[in-house]
Amino acid sequence: MLKFTKRTAKKAGTAPGTLVHVGEKKTDQIHITVTDYDIDHVVEESIVAVEESFRSKETATKTWINIDGIHDVDMIRKIGHQFTIHPLILEDIVNSGQRPKAEEFDNYVYFVFKMLYYDEAQQEIRSEQISLILGALFLFSFQEMKGDVFDVVRERIRQGKGRIRKAGCDYLAYALIDAVVDHYFLILEKLGEKIEGIEEALLDEPRPDTVQQIHEMKRELIYMRKQIWPFREMINNIQKGEYNLVEDATMIFFKDVYDHCIQVIDTIESYRDVLSGMLDLYLSTISNRMNEVMKVLTIIATIFIPLSFLAGVYGMNFEFMPELHWKWGYFVLWATMFGIIIAMLTYFKRKKWL
Amino acid sequence: MLKFTKRTAKKAGTAPGTLVHVGEKKTDQIHITVTDYDIDHVVEESIVAVEESFRSKETATKTWINIDGIHDVDMIRKIGHQFTIHPLILEDIVNSGQRPKAEEFDNYVYFVFKMLYYDEAQQEIRSEQISLILGALFLFSFQEMKGDVFDVVRERIRQGKGRIRKAGCDYLAYALIDAVVDHYFLILEKLGEKIEGIEEALLDEPRPDTVQQIHEMKRELIYMRKQIWPFREMINNIQKGEYNLVEDATMIFFKDVYDHCIQVIDTIESYRDVLSGMLDLYLSTISNRMNEVMKVLTIIATIFIPLSFLAGVYGMNFEFMPELHWKWGYFVLWATMFGIIIAMLTYFKRKKWL
Amino acid sequence: MLKFTKRTAKKAGTAPGTLVHVGEKKTDQIHITVTDYDIDHVVEESIVAVEESFRSKETATKTWINIDGIHDVDMIRKIGHQFTIHPLILEDIVNSGQRPKAEEFDNYVYFVFKMLYYDEAQQEIRSEQISLILGALFLFSFQEMKGDVFDVVRERIRQGKGRIRKAGCDYLAYALIDAVVDHYFLILEKLGEKIEGIEEALLDEPRPDTVQQIHEMKRELIYMRKQIWPFREMINNIQKGEYNLVEDATMIFFKDVYDHCIQVIDTIESYRDVLSGMLDLYLSTISNRMNEVMKVLTIIATIFIPLSFLAGVYGMNFEFMPELHWKWGYFVLWATMFGIIIAMLTYFKRKKWL
Amino acid sequence: MLKFTKRTAKKAGTAPGTLVHVGEKKTDQIHITVTDYDIDHVVEESIVAVEESFRSKETATKTWINIDGIHDVDMIRKIGHQFTIHPLILEDIVNSGQRPKAEEFDNYVYFVFKMLYYDEAQQEIRSEQISLILGALFLFSFQEMKGDVFDVVRERIRQGKGRIRKAGCDYLAYALIDAVVDHYFLILEKLGEKIEGIEEALLDEPRPDTVQQIHEMKRELIYMRKQIWPFREMINNIQKGEYNLVEDATMIFFKDVYDHCIQVIDTIESYRDVLSGMLDLYLSTISNRMNEVMKVLTIIATIFIPLSFLAGVYGMNFEFMPELHWKWGYFVLWATMFGIIIAMLTYFKRKKWL
Amino acid sequence: MLKFTKRTAKKAGTAPGTLVHVGEKKTDQIHITVTDYDIDHVVEESIVAVEESFRSKETATKTWINIDGIHDVDMIRKIGHQFTIHPLILEDIVNSGQRPKAEEFDNYVYFVFKMLYYDEAQQEIRSEQISLILGALFLFSFQEMKGDVFDVVRERIRQGKGRIRKAGCDYLAYALIDAVVDHYFLILEKLGEKIEGIEEALLDEPRPDTVQQIHEMKRELIYMRKQIWPFREMINNIQKGEYNLVEDATMIFFKDVYDHCIQVIDTIESYRDVLSGMLDLYLSTISNRMNEVMKVLTIIATIFIPLSFLAGVYGMNFEFMPELHWKWGYFVLWATMFGIIIAMLTYFKRKKWL
Repeated sequence: MLKFTKRTAKKAGTAPGTLVHVGEKKTDQIHITVTDYDIDHVVEESIVAVEESFRSKETATKTWINIDGIHDVDMIRKIGHQFTIHPLILEDIVNSGQRPKAEEFDNYVYFVFKMLYYDEAQQEIRSEQISLILGALFLFSFQEMKGDVFDVVRERIRQGKGRIRKAGCDYLAYALIDAVVDHYFLILEKLGEKIEGIEEALLDEPRPDTVQQIHEMKRELIYMRKQIWPFREMINNIQKGEYNLVEDATMIFFKDVYDHCIQVIDTIESYRDVLSGMLDLYLSTISNRMNEVMKVLTIIATIFIPLSFLAGVYGMNFEFMPELHWKWGYFVLWATMFGIIIAMLTYFKRKKWL
Repeated sequence: MLKFTKRTAKKAGTAPGTLVHVGEKKTDQIHITVTDYDIDHVVEESIVAVEESFRSKETATKTWINIDGIHDVDMIRKIGHQFTIHPLILEDIVNSGQRPKAEEFDNYVYFVFKMLYYDEAQQEIRSEQISLILGALFLFSFQEMKGDVFDVVRERIRQGKGRIRKAGCDYLAYALIDAVVDHYFLILEKLGEKIEGIEEALLDEPRPDTVQQIHEMKRELIYMRKQIWPFREMINNIQKGEYNLVEDATMIFFKDVYDHCIQVIDTIESYRDVLSGMLDLYLSTISNRMNEVMKVLTIIATIFIPLSFLAGVYGMNFEFMPELHWKWGYFVLWATMFGIIIAMLTYFKRKKWL
Repeated sequence: MLKFTKRTAKKAGTAPGTLVHVGEKKTDQIHITVTDYDIDHVVEESIVAVEESFRSKETATKTWINIDGIHDVDMIRKIGHQFTIHPLILEDIVNSGQRPKAEEFDNYVYFVFKMLYYDEAQQEIRSEQISLILGALFLFSFQEMKGDVFDVVRERIRQGKGRIRKAGCDYLAYALIDAVVDHYFLILEKLGEKIEGIEEALLDEPRPDTVQQIHEMKRELIYMRKQIWPFREMINNIQKGEYNLVEDATMIFFKDVYDHCIQVIDTIESYRDVLSGMLDLYLSTISNRMNEVMKVLTIIATIFIPLSFLAGVYGMNFEFMPELHWKWGYFVLWATMFGIIIAMLTYFKRKKWL
Repeated sequence: MLKFTKRTAKKAGTAPGTLVHVGEKKTDQIHITVTDYDIDHVVEESIVAVEESFRSKETATKTWINIDGIHDVDMIRKIGHQFTIHPLILEDIVNSGQRPKAEEFDNYVYFVFKMLYYDEAQQEIRSEQISLILGALFLFSFQEMKGDVFDVVRERIRQGKGRIRKAGCDYLAYALIDAVVDHYFLILEKLGEKIEGIEEALLDEPRPDTVQQIHEMKRELIYMRKQIWPFREMINNIQKGEYNLVEDATMIFFKDVYDHCIQVIDTIESYRDVLSGMLDLYLSTISNRMNEVMKVLTIIATIFIPLSFLAGVYGMNFEFMPELHWKWGYFVLWATMFGIIIAMLTYFKRKKWL
Repeated sequence: MLKFTKRTAKKAGTAPGTLVHVGEKKTDQIHITVTDYDIDHVVEESIVAVEESFRSKETATKTWINIDGIHDVDMIRKIGHQFTIHPLILEDIVNSGQRPKAEEFDNYVYFVFKMLYYDEAQQEIRSEQISLILGALFLFSFQEMKGDVFDVVRERIRQGKGRIRKAGCDYLAYALIDAVVDHYFLILEKLGEKIEGIEEALLDEPRPDTVQQIHEMKRELIYMRKQIWPFREMINNIQKGEYNLVEDATMIFFKDVYDHCIQVIDTIESYRDVLSGMLDLYLSTISNRMNEVMKVLTIIATIFIPLSFLAGVYGMNFEFMPELHWKWGYFVLWATMFGIIIAMLTYFKRKKWL
């Protein structure tokens, strides 16, 4: 449950703009990679001190600085100082419980959103906060830990395929966001498969833990929607052209991402509807089974209880019980009993219980 | 479940504008038919290489190029090159998991939406993606496979009935979209019949698989709404006059299609409401049956268990049991038993269990 | 269910503007009545051929042409030709599956909506499509069959009471629409009474078919809302002054109708809420009854099963069973049994089952 | 149920503006009180004929004419004639089934809304329609019957406390509306107490009629919301400054009323949510009890049925049954039986049924 | 339930602007602390009579007057007189049942909202009303009782850290509001932990009171949302720049608070969804258990009832029962019985009841 509220007590009450890392520390070592590129060349390097990347501020080439690990508040403060980033933004970068949003300032736009991945071991969706600071010629990207979701973009820059080297940093921001959204589809597929598995189990042989699985799946979808809904708003604002740093030519690409976001949300809603339907199906299956169990009991009891009563009657020890002395009494009783059985079965047949 | 998310893993991470066919390959052979027409003449031909259709670009007649099969990315690329279509649009054409939408460019408008048909064998709704590229004097239509839904339009062009030969390509686009929407009504009718069938079965003799059928029907409606809801938005944008290539005179026809779309959505919502009601009905029927079963059991058990007890008592072998030696003991017991039976029945009658 | 989708297969695929009567043919004979009136005079006549009404086009008096029966497409076509009505409108008039809407053209406004009436025999709401074509000095009204809902308006014209003879055709259109909305209230009253009846039955003696009645009532309300919701939109557009042919002085009357429409919708929603509550009430009543049934069974079984066991024990034929030979054995046993009964009853009392 | 639709059949079909009293006649005698006041003086009088109040039209003082009883259509017509009130407004005044609304005319604004009070005897909310006609120097208020809700306002005028004598008639209208809204809070408190009572009963000892009480409470809330929701809209329009006769200085007071209205609606919604939760709680309590009942039955039956069987076996009369002749047979059997009992109890213990 | 409607009967009917303390009196002694500060100095003092703080009106420094306790209406009236506060605002300050809102006047803005805290003893959320009156150089804050939530702000003023001493009173208002919102997160965390606890109990061993806990938790969330939803609106209005007294530089901080508010609401909604899911889980668990109980009963009864019947038959005392005299009769019967047992078990196995 706690993943729904990441902001923790240690943060409450501090002055706004105070840099305190909030969230789980997901990596020990901070990795900084600087990719400096324009249409003709690419230089990639791994650096240790973030200051090394600041000289790129003067060059006319585009620079992408990717930082894995957000717990080093000193480093963040240095970047903030160098690029005159608003203290509240710096605070947001190091606090991993942000709601996805975009905020524009004079010289940069800040984007924060969630990378989602499916943790197979825990069987749940986990999120990693990604912050982007988009300037005219630079783009900072902050991840909570080293991941491979941006590798496809890095590869495209290296190979110079498509428009990525030609276009500006806004296009690079788009490419990174697009990679994240593409990843959402992978999660949806994973969830879709799981839902299908649960559904098959449900139709085949519903077990008590099926409901629990449905419940957990619903919770994962609630969580996912909670992350993606504001993200959609953010992309919508971009594609409506609210931010000057995003060029017109890039807008159509953000529109494309926006369509994908809507598709993700549509699918989440459809999944939730389907899961609700499955719960109804489960409950009615349980009711049906109960009905079946009860019918068996009722049929058996209703047939044999009267017969046992008859047997009991002729097991009594009254001195004067004329039937006991009839020659065919025993056989007449059996005949009567069979008559009762047949009458009962006919009755149940007519009630459609058999 | 997987039909809710068609975008597949092989697509994630590629550069935007990369042409990769996504989706099931529904036809082997690509069919291209070119219909060149104006108010006075019609020429229809089947061609093999898409280049043959490009000369129509120069003529002043209207040209409809219909392509069945979207997996030949080379062909799509050639068309894109010839008519300067944006790469993202080409990507959308070959990726069958698009959300319905319209996008306008300088010289053309792109529409993508879903043709739905009901697969009797699998008992489910299937979708086929249809893309239209509407230019001033040409219209490309892309289908995933050869279908007959556009035949009525083709026939009307041949016969020159109505305004189709007089009006521009925007009217042709309207005619194709209208044919698709008309098809939605056929599906609604089919679903309506099935729902009615389920409802009759429900009132007549509810069986466990009735709920399953309701569940499947609901899922089909969720799927259908997911496809048609954005389609409605698309038509709405057209009829509000957002696209210059759609002439004012054609707008009223799109308004008509829009009304039909709303009607389809209204009906889907009504069906969903009705199905929810049917589920309630089913559950309460099950409860009622259980009640009835339990009543039978309770009546039988409540009558005979005390009687059996009495019979048991007089089957005991105590040496000193005075009743056993009374002359009329046996008959007095029977009278007592009948008294108990009558008392019980009266009680049940008063409780309205009988 | 099929009343939710009236558009039928025979219509799909024809060219737009093709006149094909869709829907049940509700009357054999077409009745045309022409009412020509102004402030000073009224002339009413029944005519056979619609052409006879066309000369009124030249007069300066207001003319109301009411046509009962919409299956004669030739007649509709003639009217369309004479008054230059758009083919799509003509198509809508003869197709009884329209969604309520208004559409404005240069010289007329088209309104289509549903008259609802309650079919006592079938116990369901039925609808009849009403189309109005409002011109400056004429008003066409098309009904599917001869009805009496417009009689009150006709009578007011005859008697010249109120403003109806003074005001223009827009006021006449208002009067007809108002008559239809007034009729909705009659249906609501009817449904309200039925809901009250179901509720009383529910509290008094819930029977399995009570749920079915609730279900049917809900479906009728879904159907009714589906018809009235778009009708409300239509009236709203009128009262906001979107149509030039409706004069300012008439607007306040449409505002009044609009208020009534909202009231109808409010009441439908309230009814639906109340019905949902009744379903909950029913289900909990069923559960309660089941509980009661089970309690009776449990009490009887729990008391007598141990007693029967005891009786069984002393009915055994072991050679050496000392109790059997005790003088007071039999009476001690009875005392024990009564003790058990009293203990059990006390237990049930404490559990509040008795 | 019928209180949801007050418009009755006798009204349908009459011409608009026809004055027909609709609704229950709640008072026999019509009371008219005229309060003529300005900052310096107050004159209160009870009059019989409404004409006596018309001379106040000429004076420069503010006049409040309060009329208890709306069934005297002649009187209403006279007022309408004297103050040139639109016939539709007069019709609304005498028809007690209005939806709350405000309507502005050149020389007056018409407000209609509902006074709600809780009928302890019938245990339900009842409504009384209140109409206000606000002119520059006069205010008509129409109530269905004599009530005391306006007494506090009358007293404030008499005492000249606060701004009521200084401010115009719009402030008087505010004061009356405020008195009505204050009354809503009293009803909410009453309902809140009842809900709390039901909840306590629910947790303490749920009885079948608890659900019925929840159901009735829900229906009252549906009814209350239906009355207050449009009222809120009306107040909102006032506080947004849509009506010229309401002065700017009075607007902040209407804003205050508006806030109270929102609070009333918020509380209604919260109550409904709480009641829904209570229903869930009830149903699960019933299920739990059923479970408990079934467990008792199952435990008793499962223990004694096998024992009875054993006793039955040794009650058989076969000639050759060796156990019967064993010396310790009887005691061995008892030991076996105790063994079975202990085994069963252990099993139930492990299943956590005990 | 009564905490949902705090306005009480004693208030209804008084003139607007009448100062009557409404709500529980939460503190006996009123504490007033005055903090006078600018960038260079801070003076904090505790005063007894509110008049002592009025001289600060003349100084150019910023003054924060914090008042704990709102029941001294005389004091409030004095402040109102000195700072020309509108009587309705004074009324709102002393009435603790306000809906959160902001209201702007010429020389000040009034904010009212709720501080929430979790009462561990009663296990419920309680609220305290906080009013702020923001002027150009002064800020009044009214709390219902002495609390520690503002201490962090006071400390920051003392230490002069961050921008608080530099910025104006609007920033101080922000800092107080931010402290309150930070506190909301603490409550969410607390609730999150409790929900997690309930969920674990649910999966481990569902008990009847689990549902009651879910119900209570839901009610707390309804209450919390009711308080925070209008608060969000209030903050939204501030961050959109509706109030002149809030400077542009402070706006971004309010935007930050607004984001947090949205996050709180998102989390509340997610919690509610999760709790609904838990209720479903609980109900299905109960159904499952019932099923299991019934199966045990049915299996035992179905096996032993026929066997008992057989035993009963051979316990009968008919003179002529040939089986009784067979030598192996007894053993044949046992064999038959074991056959029946095995057949039954096989049947249950096949039914998957075992």
